[in-house]
Amino acid sequence: MTEYRPLTEKTLIDYIKSRPAMAKNFPDPSNLTIKEVGDGNLNLVFIVESPNKQNAVVIKQALPYLRVAGESWPLTRERMRFESSALMKHNELAPGLAPVVYDYDDDMSAVCMEYLGKHDIMRKPMVARKRFPKFVDHISTFIANTLFYTSDLYLTGLEKKTLQAKFINPHLNKIQEDFVFTNPYMESPENRWNPLLDKEVKDIRSNAKLKIIIGEVKETYMAHAQALIHSDLHTGSIMVNDTETKVIDPEFAFYGPMGYDIGALIANLIINYLSHYAHTPDVKERTDYQAYIIETVIAIWNEFEHKFEKLWAENNRGELVPMKYWDFPGGSEAFAEYRRRYIKNIFFDTVGHGGCKILRRMMGIVSVWDITSIESFEKRALPERLAMRIGTRWLLERENIKNINDMIGVVLEESKGY
Amino acid sequence: MTEYRPLTEKTLIDYIKSRPAMAKNFPDPSNLTIKEVGDGNLNLVFIVESPNKQNAVVIKQALPYLRVAGESWPLTRERMRFESSALMKHNELAPGLAPVVYDYDDDMSAVCMEYLGKHDIMRKPMVARKRFPKFVDHISTFIANTLFYTSDLYLTGLEKKTLQAKFINPHLNKIQEDFVFTNPYMESPENRWNPLLDKEVKDIRSNAKLKIIIGEVKETYMAHAQALIHSDLHTGSIMVNDTETKVIDPEFAFYGPMGYDIGALIANLIINYLSHYAHTPDVKERTDYQAYIIETVIAIWNEFEHKFEKLWAENNRGELVPMKYWDFPGGSEAFAEYRRRYIKNIFFDTVGHGGCKILRRMMGIVSVWDITSIESFEKRALPERLAMRIGTRWLLERENIKNINDMIGVVLEESKGY
Repeated sequence: MTEYRPLTEKTLIDYIKSRPAMAKNFPDPSNLTIKEVGDGNLNLVFIVESPNKQNAVVIKQALPYLRVAGESWPLTRERMRFESSALMKHNELAPGLAPVVYDYDDDMSAVCMEYLGKHDIMRKPMVARKRFPKFVDHISTFIANTLFYTSDLYLTGLEKKTLQAKFINPHLNKIQEDFVFTNPYMESPENRWNPLLDKEVKDIRSNAKLKIIIGEVKETYMAHAQALIHSDLHTGSIMVNDTETKVIDPEFAFYGPMGYDIGALIANLIINYLSHYAHTPDVKERTDYQAYIIETVIAIWNEFEHKFEKLWAENNRGELVPMKYWDFPGGSEAFAEYRRRYIKNIFFDTVGHGGCKILRRMMGIVSVWDITSIESFEKRALPERLAMRIGTRWLLERENIKNINDMIGVVLEESKGY
Repeated sequence: MTEYRPLTEKTLIDYIKSRPAMAKNFPDPSNLTIKEVGDGNLNLVFIVESPNKQNAVVIKQALPYLRVAGESWPLTRERMRFESSALMKHNELAPGLAPVVYDYDDDMSAVCMEYLGKHDIMRKPMVARKRFPKFVDHISTFIANTLFYTSDLYLTGLEKKTLQAKFINPHLNKIQEDFVFTNPYMESPENRWNPLLDKEVKDIRSNAKLKIIIGEVKETYMAHAQALIHSDLHTGSIMVNDTETKVIDPEFAFYGPMGYDIGALIANLIINYLSHYAHTPDVKERTDYQAYIIETVIAIWNEFEHKFEKLWAENNRGELVPMKYWDFPGGSEAFAEYRRRYIKNIFFDTVGHGGCKILRRMMGIVSVWDITSIESFEKRALPERLAMRIGTRWLLERENIKNINDMIGVVLEESKGY
């Protein structure tokens, strides 16, 4: 057993040499370029390249404390185990859609994985109105596959519960429980919001109906162990280029509701849609790109629904409702109806989680680059106000939001005329 | 570490001497009366008494195979760990309402616990129309306490998930998944039913709407990790006398839906109610006792609801909705409404699980003594037919069954005129 110590640019080469699965990525592991690029405050992130740059990996190591606060806020390093285990599972279930893991060292809480040098974190190019022609197909495959293949629809009870036990992840769950579902909607010192929206924030915090619903959505996050979800699937966790999509940073992964992942994704795309009221003053440019985002969101849901339903119809090997259970006259129609209702429930959850994910970015601990890159509070106010209205309506009206067109209808209604 | 071996009446005294926590129950552990009374086929059960019978314990040991089938069907012995861990948790949360555990030996899969020599398994005296004046109070306390104190309403996220990890129980879950929610409703060799009810069984097996709903109720069993449930809380798992109630056999315990426990309890009381059409030909005697059961069921739900709501209102320390979240004008009313809605959902689940628990006893692997003790299929047919109708209606009509009076209303309607 190796004793844990934080890696440095100096010690990294010896460390790589000591790990065959890391070293084998390089013809000569003595001669490497190393750059620490961790801009976060939780992890060290090293890019390691061979001199000709033909071979490259990332080595990511969890720190046992929150970096910005010095060593005063201890954290569990186990998050790196969750991240590397989830990445390996994602590669297995959705090949090519997550970085490949070459090695994981539990003692050092360090993972060595594929370097994504030709991909961008999706938020930035979306602010620059870039389009990604393969994105809908890739991300809908990612969510359909990772959610279906880890659910009771595909796995036996024993398989599912064995995987669930591996991903009991209370410390990272707590972060989402607090910062997505609780603290933004009450007084809490870490909350940040646009001071021009004081009234809106106050109204949300004291909206009884809304808070009851948020509490109910939170309950599904805490107790609906439906599939191994990524649990932080926003556009900052997706790296893209014209041909590839890679989902990163799954350290929050655990057994939770499928709708949380899809809701996070849709919410963040809609926040980007709204941000263009500030980023893109040219009306034609803006409406074109906004229309592209709307199409993207609708297509993501529709393709997800189609792929998920097809996977299920063709691979119903799970514990939940075995094929033999449907072996009666009219049974295949009944099974089809069961699938429809199940997917309708995923959609219902998607709307609720999407609402929470929008609101928390407007009034919680951390906003998103789409918004913070807008130069002034004045200019942020419109997209943020619209976002708060849309998130609120998704939550309050979710019983009546029956499909993706209804969900997008709320966005279009609220943004009409701006 | 002790190597596992099945205990015998001969080896038991030496075994007790080797375990101080067992031996300390007896002034002289060399001089004990031992009787093996396991009528099941999964476990050895020894009653151990001192000569004067003043001191007595039960020692229960899991066999690694299904006894009736010789050694051919291997089973996991871990169920004894789940049982003893759950018993200890129940004693902590509902003192006096479960047998006390004196010792647990994981290597031997053996537990030493309080001997309940003055209590009866509830089914038999209920067939004899016996009343238990303390039962409603005891059992409603048991379910309110065990469910509330293990839920996200009372525990922090870390506490809940730590307990949940301890009770990942896939092998025993599988038994309920198969035998409560799946196999009874399709062809499966172990199913047993009254041949006079062939048509009813066939109708249920091919009722598309019903099977969709059963599949949805099963989903909550498999994926709604709401509280540490007993998971087999029928009247064969309850020992009673005039003054005491003890809930036994919690080896199926895991994090599941609260409504499963309450539904199991109500379903089994209603089966007993119906069994009196055969057991009690005297109309006055029958209707009196049936009225007592109806009162009992209504009072169990109402007292559960009252106790659970009070525990929550007074002890809202859990992760789900902290008090500070409700700190706004109208917040305490909103929190009260949130609690009402949460409990309404428990009731909704209770109706669904209750329906499945009735049906599985009529057409699955194992009936109950209330029914099997009726002397002929002819006499069983009426209570069984009514049970199948009631279970079916609870499931099909659950959206409209808003409260315990509606639920009981179905029982009274179906049994009217018999």
